[in-house]
Amino acid sequence: MRIKPHTEVPSSEVTMEGAAGCRVRWLIGEADQAPTFAMREFEVEPGGHTPKHFHNYEHEVFVLAGKGMILDGDEERPLAAGDVVFVAPDDVHQFRNTGSEPMRFLCLIPNSAASKNVTVVPECGIEKA
Amino acid sequence: MRIKPHTEVPSSEVTMEGAAGCRVRWLIGEADQAPTFAMREFEVEPGGHTPKHFHNYEHEVFVLAGKGMILDGDEERPLAAGDVVFVAPDDVHQFRNTGSEPMRFLCLIPNSAASKNVTVVPECGIEKA
Repeated sequence: MRIKPHTEVPSSEVTMEGAAGCRVRWLIGEADQAPTFAMREFEVEPGGHTPKHFHNYEHEVFVLAGKGMILDGDEERPLAAGDVVFVAPDDVHQFRNTGSEPMRFLCLIPNSAASKNVTVVPECGIEKA
Repeated sequence: MRIKPHTEVPSSEVTMEGAAGCRVRWLIGEADQAPTFAMREFEVEPGGHTPKHFHNYEHEVFVLAGKGMILDGDEERPLAAGDVVFVAPDDVHQFRNTGSEPMRFLCLIPNSAASKNVTVVPECGIEKA
């Protein structure tokens, strides 16, 4: 069993094309020999966003703090702390912080994601990182 | 894509032998056709606890609110909001709320757990539910 405060896990900048103001902590993953899925925490600064992208594996998301929106294909849907999001395989999605505080959310993925491709979708109407 | 406030998901009492004052919400699971793993939220009232038990699949846990402890085999280890716990397969474990507010945590399991056994461990020094 491993127990740690989430803040003890180092965070690193998300450098994928299309990301801006976005950091990630791998809370549970390969280093823990987690057999099936990985737990990550994202922190997006006000005005920041993840890439608009899709992939053939799922996300299971819980919003811990802040407010923003998620792009569901081309539809903007609001998000706030306490919201749960199931992003099905191949759903086009993007998280954006539209609030004034950091937006933090857990985003879990299956281990099989490591061998799969991510496709970034070109964007209109959002500033380049 | 499915988005919902966690409070919209109905909660039900945990009736497994050894549980007391413990409710669960299945936030993401079979109903969402989640392909690999399920997200549950547990709420344990002050003085309540999950069963002391083990199984041959993992838990990935994030403590959302409250304070308490987790039994790691026979060792009591403190838990507080923001803590991350990886319970490896076959680890004996039990969550207990030792605070004065509800303790809430996410606990994710692989879909394969549905076909696996859980073994409840007899307890000393804790009141029966």
